[in-house]
Amino acid sequence: MIFLKKLINNPEQVVRDMIDGMVLAHPDKLKNLPGTNVMIRAHAPVQGKVALVSGGGSGHEPSHAGYVGVGMLDAAVAGEVFTSPTPDQILEAIKAVDTGNGVLLIIKNYSGDLMNFEMAAELAEAEGIQVAKVVVNDDVAVENSTYTTGRRGIAGTVFVHKIAGALAEKGASLEEVEQVANKVIQHVRSMGVAFTPCTVPAAGKPSFEIGETEMEIGIGIHGEPGTHRTAMASADEIADILLSRILDDMKLSPGDQVAVMINGLGGTPLMELYILNKKVSQILKNKDISVYNTYVGEYMTAIEMAGCSITLLKLDDQLIELLEAPADTIAWKN
Amino acid sequence: MIFLKKLINNPEQVVRDMIDGMVLAHPDKLKNLPGTNVMIRAHAPVQGKVALVSGGGSGHEPSHAGYVGVGMLDAAVAGEVFTSPTPDQILEAIKAVDTGNGVLLIIKNYSGDLMNFEMAAELAEAEGIQVAKVVVNDDVAVENSTYTTGRRGIAGTVFVHKIAGALAEKGASLEEVEQVANKVIQHVRSMGVAFTPCTVPAAGKPSFEIGETEMEIGIGIHGEPGTHRTAMASADEIADILLSRILDDMKLSPGDQVAVMINGLGGTPLMELYILNKKVSQILKNKDISVYNTYVGEYMTAIEMAGCSITLLKLDDQLIELLEAPADTIAWKN
Repeated sequence: MIFLKKLINNPEQVVRDMIDGMVLAHPDKLKNLPGTNVMIRAHAPVQGKVALVSGGGSGHEPSHAGYVGVGMLDAAVAGEVFTSPTPDQILEAIKAVDTGNGVLLIIKNYSGDLMNFEMAAELAEAEGIQVAKVVVNDDVAVENSTYTTGRRGIAGTVFVHKIAGALAEKGASLEEVEQVANKVIQHVRSMGVAFTPCTVPAAGKPSFEIGETEMEIGIGIHGEPGTHRTAMASADEIADILLSRILDDMKLSPGDQVAVMINGLGGTPLMELYILNKKVSQILKNKDISVYNTYVGEYMTAIEMAGCSITLLKLDDQLIELLEAPADTIAWKN
Repeated sequence: MIFLKKLINNPEQVVRDMIDGMVLAHPDKLKNLPGTNVMIRAHAPVQGKVALVSGGGSGHEPSHAGYVGVGMLDAAVAGEVFTSPTPDQILEAIKAVDTGNGVLLIIKNYSGDLMNFEMAAELAEAEGIQVAKVVVNDDVAVENSTYTTGRRGIAGTVFVHKIAGALAEKGASLEEVEQVANKVIQHVRSMGVAFTPCTVPAAGKPSFEIGETEMEIGIGIHGEPGTHRTAMASADEIADILLSRILDDMKLSPGDQVAVMINGLGGTPLMELYILNKKVSQILKNKDISVYNTYVGEYMTAIEMAGCSITLLKLDDQLIELLEAPADTIAWKN
């Protein structure tokens, strides 16, 4: 058996093995709901609090199990690689973390995720659980895509986890938590670029081909087509391309305050993400947009794809307070 | 100009651009000593405390600037990619963080680093600064290597930063901090594997060639030769190979307690590191070795190399207390 250049045992077992390895590494933070690919907090359910459930296809680690913990999610449901989790697994997650205060589902805008999370919500409601849903669609690159009607949800989702999670932790109602999640969604925009494809283990070959000196602007986190292919450019030029598209869409004004996320897609080293951030910071400064906080690292990946995305979140006092509130998860600690 | 598939501007400027991007991202944690590649704490120097200085070639991010901050390092000196920092820059770092309580240099065992840090130490001593040095040589793969006499220093170095940093933060003397750093060095062992080479930006081509179905066991973090090349194996087999070599060298007994680090070299996704950890946990459990804590992620990389290393640190009560002590850096937070 050829194992590609991947550290795996069996391409059909990668999600199971990963989940087992995560629980073994972090038993103080996570437990696995037996017989499922659902990860919940080690001390779940948390009484007297709205519960947050997210998830989606695997291959985007640390999304989403990396954000399960105090101040962020209560549960994450992992589908197979780049495949939506099934409604029954999402339902199990909802039932495991609800304590009678309701559950917010945070869904990235992909047709499969939307359908399966909505079906799970209906099943949960039929069992008497109060459920609300928000759909993240922060990717400004394209309207409609391979798996999406409307805009795709990408790394901006992590800000929704953080901020809605912080409000839920303070004891807010389901309606209030849903409202602040939608506020983040209204104020967050992202766009990405890729230099190489990635390989889904079970497929055994790269998901697309791209020339040796080419990059794809606006690519999705599953390799969905972006806006165009062009010759590899410098980090400064890439910062310009992505940020100008984001800023066209956001209509920020001088004096506005933002959080910036420079997200690596898996194969791009931290060094290069910081190089990109230098130009991103300079562009924002030139426009008199104030950067409150910058997050640089791998927050939502595409297996081993080389590339990155830039996310801007427009802040106000409420969002700043919630962004800074305590969080204790594998991938985000405040 | 061909930019490879890298997010850079100029291959000769990557370290400068990275440092600028880091300071712009984390002004609350880091500042750059003007005219140098030295990163120090934003609020350095810290009065009344032994200062810790580390560093080495760039390309291993988040090592070492990612560990500058409360509870870990006081300064990190960045050389060019895979190139030792110069003595004058190391001297500047020492002078910037010393407050009269002495400075501990934490050096990975590479001939260039050793020579330049030693020269800087002599120059600092000539200026009346008390300096101690420890040399990390955790890599059990090979004795002597391309750039090393003896064993190489790799990811285990991060445990030295954490534990010696915690003791320094408590107000211990230079001698005590040096002693605990040497205790970590005596009790930490690592070994790595690579599936792909990496490309130093200024070189413009991969540092070595490796077959499509081959891996190199025991490789160094600059691509130095390991023990042998063999066909790609499963994650479980790789865990067996690396861990058995480490355990041969460590002579752990049933009932011993360890910290485990599963370190990605840059191009290997988090999913795969967790898959590896599953087997590592099982092997240790079968030997009745107790895992106190597991760290999974990118701690010391080799640009975009696909591969990983495993590190074990044998713990006692003192080391556990220092490992758990507060730390607030970009790449390590307790």
